[in-house]
Amino acid sequence: MTKPRPSFYSKIEQLPALVFVLKWLLLSLIVGVLAGSASAFFLVSLNWVTDWRESHPWIIGCLPVGGFIVGAAYHYWGQDVVKGNNQLIEEFHSPKQIIPLKMAPLVLFGTLVTHFFGGSAGREGTAVQMGGAIADQFSRLFKLSPADRRIILIIGISAGFASVFGTPLAGAVFALEVLIVGRMRYEALLPSLLTALIADYTCHAWNVSHTHYAIPYVPPLHADTLVYSLLAGILFGLTAMAFSKTVHFWGIFFKDRISYAPLRPVVGGIVIALAVWGIGTTKYIGLGVPTIVASFQEPLPAYDFLLKLLFTTFTLGAGFKGGEVTPLFFIGAALGNALALFIPLPMALLAGMGFVAVFSGATNTPIACTLMGIELFGADCGVFVGLACVVAYLFSGHSGIYGSQITENAKH
Amino acid sequence: MTKPRPSFYSKIEQLPALVFVLKWLLLSLIVGVLAGSASAFFLVSLNWVTDWRESHPWIIGCLPVGGFIVGAAYHYWGQDVVKGNNQLIEEFHSPKQIIPLKMAPLVLFGTLVTHFFGGSAGREGTAVQMGGAIADQFSRLFKLSPADRRIILIIGISAGFASVFGTPLAGAVFALEVLIVGRMRYEALLPSLLTALIADYTCHAWNVSHTHYAIPYVPPLHADTLVYSLLAGILFGLTAMAFSKTVHFWGIFFKDRISYAPLRPVVGGIVIALAVWGIGTTKYIGLGVPTIVASFQEPLPAYDFLLKLLFTTFTLGAGFKGGEVTPLFFIGAALGNALALFIPLPMALLAGMGFVAVFSGATNTPIACTLMGIELFGADCGVFVGLACVVAYLFSGHSGIYGSQITENAKH
Repeated sequence: MTKPRPSFYSKIEQLPALVFVLKWLLLSLIVGVLAGSASAFFLVSLNWVTDWRESHPWIIGCLPVGGFIVGAAYHYWGQDVVKGNNQLIEEFHSPKQIIPLKMAPLVLFGTLVTHFFGGSAGREGTAVQMGGAIADQFSRLFKLSPADRRIILIIGISAGFASVFGTPLAGAVFALEVLIVGRMRYEALLPSLLTALIADYTCHAWNVSHTHYAIPYVPPLHADTLVYSLLAGILFGLTAMAFSKTVHFWGIFFKDRISYAPLRPVVGGIVIALAVWGIGTTKYIGLGVPTIVASFQEPLPAYDFLLKLLFTTFTLGAGFKGGEVTPLFFIGAALGNALALFIPLPMALLAGMGFVAVFSGATNTPIACTLMGIELFGADCGVFVGLACVVAYLFSGHSGIYGSQITENAKH
Repeated sequence: MTKPRPSFYSKIEQLPALVFVLKWLLLSLIVGVLAGSASAFFLVSLNWVTDWRESHPWIIGCLPVGGFIVGAAYHYWGQDVVKGNNQLIEEFHSPKQIIPLKMAPLVLFGTLVTHFFGGSAGREGTAVQMGGAIADQFSRLFKLSPADRRIILIIGISAGFASVFGTPLAGAVFALEVLIVGRMRYEALLPSLLTALIADYTCHAWNVSHTHYAIPYVPPLHADTLVYSLLAGILFGLTAMAFSKTVHFWGIFFKDRISYAPLRPVVGGIVIALAVWGIGTTKYIGLGVPTIVASFQEPLPAYDFLLKLLFTTFTLGAGFKGGEVTPLFFIGAALGNALALFIPLPMALLAGMGFVAVFSGATNTPIACTLMGIELFGADCGVFVGLACVVAYLFSGHSGIYGSQITENAKH
């Protein structure tokens, strides 16, 4: 009520808003179509590579060769893009140079090789890095201001994330939330959302669809189901912390012992190939989508989540490429599935809660993950998914998988 | 990857998190049950008052008397709580004194009198002020630190909002988003969510239910539906700005002309009573829930939104009490309904988009409003609702209905 009377100037403050919308509609269209198409190509290739490996499992024996290819590619041509997602985050906070475009083909190639030969990894890192690298080229082309360049990096991340998972709202918020925990750049909200929608649309236009998961029954929230959800959230958070710390651990482990970088994934590949041969299943390598789907439907071995955690952290720590997120989905969904043994919530609900909550804990993005749960499983489970994501965020410690992330406030 | 090895200390960082959760579980339980019960009592009384007025429309002729009662109550006993929602926001930013508990009964009484005699107002302000005033008493009782007191104010707002609308996720995020646009206090995320859930549960436990709205058909997002959504979002944003500016305008109009505060709602009451008599309908006074429901179902007069805007801003500017949000729902839903005349999107979808988007523009809370749309209408419309809320936020100018709100970044 202390505001001055409406001035004439304030009446035309919509004009710059309109210019802003038109400008970012154009840039979102360009970035969204390109990043969405890149995601589509990546998803199709990834499917092909996964199918080929599953029908020719002997290829896993060549994983050390794959490791050398990936390691050498990054060692000789990719020193300036090897930091991946962290590099995008660092460029956002302290801009130094345009992200080299080669980040996109290198991460695409590295991820496909990793999956082809049987490493355990994800895909969001790949999509996000392709999106970010593609988007940032327009910073130079259009001579964007530093403020606009920050938005460009955000929409690149948003486009990659939204299109690779088919979750535009989560992608739009993820790109804002992941950079500084607790401080969203609201001026980037519309560009981020527009690009997410256009990238997701583009990916679908290429006839690439995403896996569907169903939570058939969601109980009402009562005192007991609330406490069970808190308990599950704590366990999801601790698992997320274990994942982040184990990735760091293996990374340092390999760096300390093997100074020639391309040799690390060779040694790592030998160990993984032997482990797959010893266990006698390919369940824990690749993306693991069949197991994620199964964890909504039938009881799984309680140790599934732990083995996937070990395989993935070892794969990534050894220097293979790919994202962390689909394995985090696997770990969370399989853990949720196992928790149904002693937490009296429906198994599919626990799997869904774990799916997004372990991811939330590892990346410190509880709101994006809640939205993702709603987009993937429907609004009914929103409250349970939200509780799990927020509690997992709180219990996952202060270091997530993105070391360059800045935290605005303490978690508690 | 530049992180140090996991230290032993970092392994016990979960202990303070556990203490934090238990502490806020207790405080959330107390505040949630009390604020949820207050909301339940308020909603039941409001129903009774509304039904009585609708079956005895002559009472509207006494609106000037009601105006004097409200005006005098605040003039003689409520000078220190008259700023309402803004007072909660100001206390959060620059703490001066515990919110007087009398804010709760005064705003409850003022709102019920306003609705009983036929003013046009809402209910979220009432619920939020009751929640905030109740919650803040525990700051003194438990001798909370300044940091904890900020969380207490947040959970009071969250509890009131979540329980009065039956939307816990939106309530939890609204309380964080409304205080500083662009800077959420993530340490308050869990307390805010817990209190929202408990308050909402408590309100339902008192057998108070909320109105349901349905959007039967949501089209796929294509280039055309995207552009229509942007266009609708712009109009929702401009309407939100018109609402905020008109409330300010009437407030200053009355203050400039009538120095004795209790006389302002008397004069305002005379004008409103005459206007209702002249128009011959009670459609534009009170909450207007029947018209909100109708706007999802059948074509309404295109001027409905404009009349509701005038009635509400005039009612509040004259010094009557109540919230702004349900009238904002009315204005948005009725405008969406009217837009269906020339924007080729389904009428119910446009009504739902307007419902939350005008609110988003007026309060600068696009993420909470998107969540609210999903909680009220289902996840299918999430993308359309999200677009409308973000664009309306962008086009609603820099002054919303909460003058004390701080904006972290420019909108664009």
